[in-house]
Amino acid sequence: KDYTEPPPEPLFVPSELTSWSFYRAGIAEFIATFLFLYVSILTVMGVNKSDSKCSTVGIQGIAWAFGGMIFALVYCTAGISVPGSHLRGWCGEGFGKTLYQTKGGGANVVAHGYTKGDGLGAEIVGTFVLVYTVFSATDAKRSARDSHVPILAPLPIGFAVFLVHLATIPITGTGINPARSLGAAIIYNKDHAWDDHWIFWVGPFIGAALAALYHQVVIRAIPFKSK
Amino acid sequence: KDYTEPPPEPLFVPSELTSWSFYRAGIAEFIATFLFLYVSILTVMGVNKSDSKCSTVGIQGIAWAFGGMIFALVYCTAGISVPGSHLRGWCGEGFGKTLYQTKGGGANVVAHGYTKGDGLGAEIVGTFVLVYTVFSATDAKRSARDSHVPILAPLPIGFAVFLVHLATIPITGTGINPARSLGAAIIYNKDHAWDDHWIFWVGPFIGAALAALYHQVVIRAIPFKSK
Amino acid sequence: KDYTEPPPEPLFVPSELTSWSFYRAGIAEFIATFLFLYVSILTVMGVNKSDSKCSTVGIQGIAWAFGGMIFALVYCTAGISVPGSHLRGWCGEGFGKTLYQTKGGGANVVAHGYTKGDGLGAEIVGTFVLVYTVFSATDAKRSARDSHVPILAPLPIGFAVFLVHLATIPITGTGINPARSLGAAIIYNKDHAWDDHWIFWVGPFIGAALAALYHQVVIRAIPFKSK
Amino acid sequence: KDYTEPPPEPLFVPSELTSWSFYRAGIAEFIATFLFLYVSILTVMGVNKSDSKCSTVGIQGIAWAFGGMIFALVYCTAGISVPGSHLRGWCGEGFGKTLYQTKGGGANVVAHGYTKGDGLGAEIVGTFVLVYTVFSATDAKRSARDSHVPILAPLPIGFAVFLVHLATIPITGTGINPARSLGAAIIYNKDHAWDDHWIFWVGPFIGAALAALYHQVVIRAIPFKSK
Repeated sequence: KDYTEPPPEPLFVPSELTSWSFYRAGIAEFIATFLFLYVSILTVMGVNKSDSKCSTVGIQGIAWAFGGMIFALVYCTAGISVPGSHLRGWCGEGFGKTLYQTKGGGANVVAHGYTKGDGLGAEIVGTFVLVYTVFSATDAKRSARDSHVPILAPLPIGFAVFLVHLATIPITGTGINPARSLGAAIIYNKDHAWDDHWIFWVGPFIGAALAALYHQVVIRAIPFKSK
Repeated sequence: KDYTEPPPEPLFVPSELTSWSFYRAGIAEFIATFLFLYVSILTVMGVNKSDSKCSTVGIQGIAWAFGGMIFALVYCTAGISVPGSHLRGWCGEGFGKTLYQTKGGGANVVAHGYTKGDGLGAEIVGTFVLVYTVFSATDAKRSARDSHVPILAPLPIGFAVFLVHLATIPITGTGINPARSLGAAIIYNKDHAWDDHWIFWVGPFIGAALAALYHQVVIRAIPFKSK
Repeated sequence: KDYTEPPPEPLFVPSELTSWSFYRAGIAEFIATFLFLYVSILTVMGVNKSDSKCSTVGIQGIAWAFGGMIFALVYCTAGISVPGSHLRGWCGEGFGKTLYQTKGGGANVVAHGYTKGDGLGAEIVGTFVLVYTVFSATDAKRSARDSHVPILAPLPIGFAVFLVHLATIPITGTGINPARSLGAAIIYNKDHAWDDHWIFWVGPFIGAALAALYHQVVIRAIPFKSK
Repeated sequence: KDYTEPPPEPLFVPSELTSWSFYRAGIAEFIATFLFLYVSILTVMGVNKSDSKCSTVGIQGIAWAFGGMIFALVYCTAGISVPGSHLRGWCGEGFGKTLYQTKGGGANVVAHGYTKGDGLGAEIVGTFVLVYTVFSATDAKRSARDSHVPILAPLPIGFAVFLVHLATIPITGTGINPARSLGAAIIYNKDHAWDDHWIFWVGPFIGAALAALYHQVVIRAIPFKSK
């Protein structure tokens, strides 16, 4: 074996509470989520405020903003915190309150012309694409074999987010992150947003679970390996 | 010689049928093709359903969806399966049935204003660009000489798909993959799609054969080398 | 420790004045800024001159021009000069005089519908995104640990500029560089541009200072480390 | 010294005429130029033929086609031939005859509203950007020092072409390659194209000469180094 599998990570380690890295990871998550939401939401607002979509960066520009920020932030925070931690939700919410309320919503709902099933499917597959790419990019065995795996890593992760936005902005506005959807729903606070809201929790969790299962069981066959 | 040529690959090895890697490659192909079609077709649908192309990601966004997914999937499946295997067809078809029929077609036909010769040429050259890039990116000799060859590899392959879509969406809708064209034609099932259908088999096969010939004979001069 | 922190850089070294590298860095800064402004301003002009934004590269194309040039120039001048030096200002001004005056302005002002506070915030956060990315990309410790940090470096820096433009072109026209804003304001020389002008000095300086503080104190905890 | 400067290349070596690599480089140049022109010109045609630019990939898509193809082709032919050789011209011409004549021109002229001086300047600076990037990417000293220089190399070269197209398509249609301009002018064969034609020879030659001078004398200071 030319690679070492990282040891299983415990869910909570009490001694972490006295370590600087723990709080640093929290602060880094907060700042990264703030920057992510600031840039992407300003881009959405710039497009929505304009009468003619042609004199804006367009829907494609919005997809670049989301995907590009993920690329830049994964690049910048790799090794400091695991992007996507639980702090993300509170930050999104707090920030959302000041920005969304004054400037207009960004809540995830299933668009007119699509069923709730379409929306759920879009969220499941969209989250699968992202989480599967993250697993592929951080796989110890693949990193040891192919030099492009660790070196390019932040790029395909950012592209995954970009691509899912290209595909599902017209269907659900693209959630693939329950915290982002919750924050927006609390501010927006309309009945039809709350009616669809379960989709943006159930979809991402199913998608992420399937991606984890797929990577561990099918791709790496880890459960079948003898120690 | 500072590199080793990989040994010639036999077309079929009976013992493969009992190996996990064989079935894993099959599953990985199925999943990758499913994700590729899901994201790219949803993007096409989002653009087509809108009255104003300015409030969509546009035709350029479609080209990014196709090329970007190939980039992400080549990055994710490199070392697990050879993208483009024969399973691709069945998957495209099965998935197509549920999605295309309910939401509208994506069949490859030669557009009004172009001759069948134009369409065939576009498919030949388009496939050549893609297959030539794949050969260049996986060449053992080039990988040993230039560090950028193995490290960037998935990026130019994805760009090749993106670029061919930029150029030939207005002509044929861009096939460069018989399975993708077959699946769409079966669902769409209109006479004029079947009339043009041979183009999306003959074109890609000629293009791929020319690219293989070009790479082996001209670039690597493999037939002329003494053992 | 598997890495060496670069020694602190003195602000001014008299002996530098007799070294070729010093003047070379100055010339390289001048040329790089000239090329940056030439390409990005021509792109802006091409978009502004056209009646229909659809027959131009669009606002998204402008964002690509700014971000792409930064990517290319960081790639080309890394190791020769530190991009962003003080020479930049004079160059921007000198070049501006010949181009802006004859062809139309590019001054940074807060757009109608936004408060001065919105503009200041956009400049602070935009500069933070850029400077934070630069710090992350040039961090000696991170470069030693993750191979993608030094190899991809110019790409996320260029993307940071691209993304900030996607987000803040509709708000302030995107300054995040006092010299660029000063040059444009001098040529444009209208009262409302001068009224907003402090924003494009105060914003970038606060943003850059916060990013430096964040990277040194929070991420690297350099002040708390014993020698 | 941790790097070796490549020895000066003679302009013509008689023994080359009997070597396979020489003819291979010629064929590779021909094929690469053919693919470059095929993809980029089809993209231009697709945009021009449509009544609404919004239902095409747009001018930005054209810039991506030119820049992306250069990225892919530099990636694919690095080590086989030096992109930009003299064969390029004849190929462009031969191919142009069959495609341009039947489908519509692509000749470089100075656009209405710009002076010949504007056009010449755009060609000089545009070629400078490209050639300067190529020199920076292939510099032996920089490659030895910064790992990103050799690994990313094809990417900034492709971006340079993309960026110059973003900026100068509205001014001259972007030449920065005399052979490409000559081929198009011969087919188009209108007086006003021939009147401007000198610009697309003089501009690129001045731009390339300045870039070579800048890199050799200012950046590398090669003439001032003792052996």
